[in-house]
Amino acid sequence: MSGDDDLAPVRSVAVSRVSTGGVTRGVDAAATEEPLDIRLHGRSFAVIMRTPGHDRALAAGFLLAERVIRSAEDVGAIEHCRHPDHRRAHHVVDVFLVGDAAACVTATLEARRQLVANSSCGVCGRATIDELRRDIPALAIEWTVDVPFVRSLPSRLRATQTAFDETGGLHGAAIFSRTARLLSSAEDVGRHNAVDKCIGQLLLERHARGASPPDVGSDSVDPVASEDGRTGTADAIAVSGRVAFEIVQKAWLAGIPLIVAVSAPTTLAVDLAAEAGITLVGFARGDNLNVYTHPQRIAGV
Amino acid sequence: MSGDDDLAPVRSVAVSRVSTGGVTRGVDAAATEEPLDIRLHGRSFAVIMRTPGHDRALAAGFLLAERVIRSAEDVGAIEHCRHPDHRRAHHVVDVFLVGDAAACVTATLEARRQLVANSSCGVCGRATIDELRRDIPALAIEWTVDVPFVRSLPSRLRATQTAFDETGGLHGAAIFSRTARLLSSAEDVGRHNAVDKCIGQLLLERHARGASPPDVGSDSVDPVASEDGRTGTADAIAVSGRVAFEIVQKAWLAGIPLIVAVSAPTTLAVDLAAEAGITLVGFARGDNLNVYTHPQRIAGV
Repeated sequence: MSGDDDLAPVRSVAVSRVSTGGVTRGVDAAATEEPLDIRLHGRSFAVIMRTPGHDRALAAGFLLAERVIRSAEDVGAIEHCRHPDHRRAHHVVDVFLVGDAAACVTATLEARRQLVANSSCGVCGRATIDELRRDIPALAIEWTVDVPFVRSLPSRLRATQTAFDETGGLHGAAIFSRTARLLSSAEDVGRHNAVDKCIGQLLLERHARGASPPDVGSDSVDPVASEDGRTGTADAIAVSGRVAFEIVQKAWLAGIPLIVAVSAPTTLAVDLAAEAGITLVGFARGDNLNVYTHPQRIAGV
Repeated sequence: MSGDDDLAPVRSVAVSRVSTGGVTRGVDAAATEEPLDIRLHGRSFAVIMRTPGHDRALAAGFLLAERVIRSAEDVGAIEHCRHPDHRRAHHVVDVFLVGDAAACVTATLEARRQLVANSSCGVCGRATIDELRRDIPALAIEWTVDVPFVRSLPSRLRATQTAFDETGGLHGAAIFSRTARLLSSAEDVGRHNAVDKCIGQLLLERHARGASPPDVGSDSVDPVASEDGRTGTADAIAVSGRVAFEIVQKAWLAGIPLIVAVSAPTTLAVDLAAEAGITLVGFARGDNLNVYTHPQRIAGV
């Protein structure tokens, strides 16, 4: 934990607690929320609110979801800003690309500028879905898991949520192999960030191990998976809350074919999961599961 | 409800329900998620994902929170797009401003373009807070409420959440006067949208009644409140989930000095509420309340 207050994922805040027993003064732990500036080759690509921690993973996962990178092989370096005069350098991540992604960086920044200038925040579900549908093949059903595996994921996710225990105010996400190995987990005030961080962690691990044979490109949908036995493949992602379309979009781009959520999906999430070949499970609580799409990936369902 | 499927706030989706009793097929109600294009004088200002319903209120509340309008008096018309050739006209709201706001519309659109081009999504908490701090005075403590009033708000909010009952997948928000009158309520897949819709409803009501004496401008922080006895003043807002800084920002701009949330606040929400003179209550569950800022607005705390 840093001496700098705004870098800790959890911070103490004063609180007056009212109960039937009266009023007591104390301190509460609150989830930290601070802006992170994600830069490409020194120029700002996006500023997002996030809980500090796993900032590099967040940047990697965010850039994958935004389709700036397709895999770990596109990443040259992802580092916190080191400029000695930058007062908030710890809230800036500098990303340097290599290969085609680097050659396109000016065009990428310009496209982002146009996108946000035209759609004002770039969140247009239909356009995104049409683009994904055109570019990315649906995930094929290549294996099945059993119901007990799916049922186990919410409690295994919950066990990773240490900051939630303190604050009650953070979303969690965790990625598992179908052999039930926990591959990565993250917490954040933003549910999308928690997913980006999880996916980004796997991407950074792959990057750190050195580029695997680059089976990447527009026909690749498996940029974070690894078959090397060390990490297992990224087969399932569990999320602590609801599922809107962006979670499904991120899973699709990461090649993760099973989403298990503790709460409800939206219509667009269901529609996109159906298109993407993703098995979408909601309301995973105790023994109960609601399977909205592609149930055949779960044996017996 | 429209014949058009994507206009209903709730839609049926197929589901396979897994329980200890086995697997059953059925239909589930999911919260609809569709993009809404908010246009100023015919040009796109923002595209946001939302649950259809109260679209005009959403546009009004969003524009208040984005500081494009300061009050109902700045609004000429807010209507769904009527272009006969526009296939998705029901997902477009056209806003026409009057007075100074209208005179500035080109500058407003250009500023938006610059903002998103530079900060890439306009979500930079610190910059926003610095701007608010400079422009908007803190809300003074002009009255107090009692603990039973504050305790009552979560269940009164819950009673308004009819779509949540169906889907379990929607955030809710409701605005109350300090005399315990329910003034507006809304549900949405986005928690920010639910707040914008609530505030926007009051703004549209005021607009429909005709401009009250225009006590507005940069020194006004009470654009949705009304003392005419018909609606009461907008004194408290209850929200179903967590509170990040944007909820506090929206309440501040709407002049609502009391926020009651069922779940946790973030650090930035607490910081901003302290600055804004807003009483921020979290974890309002049963008899318990956690009061994070300005407890003196609640008698006995």
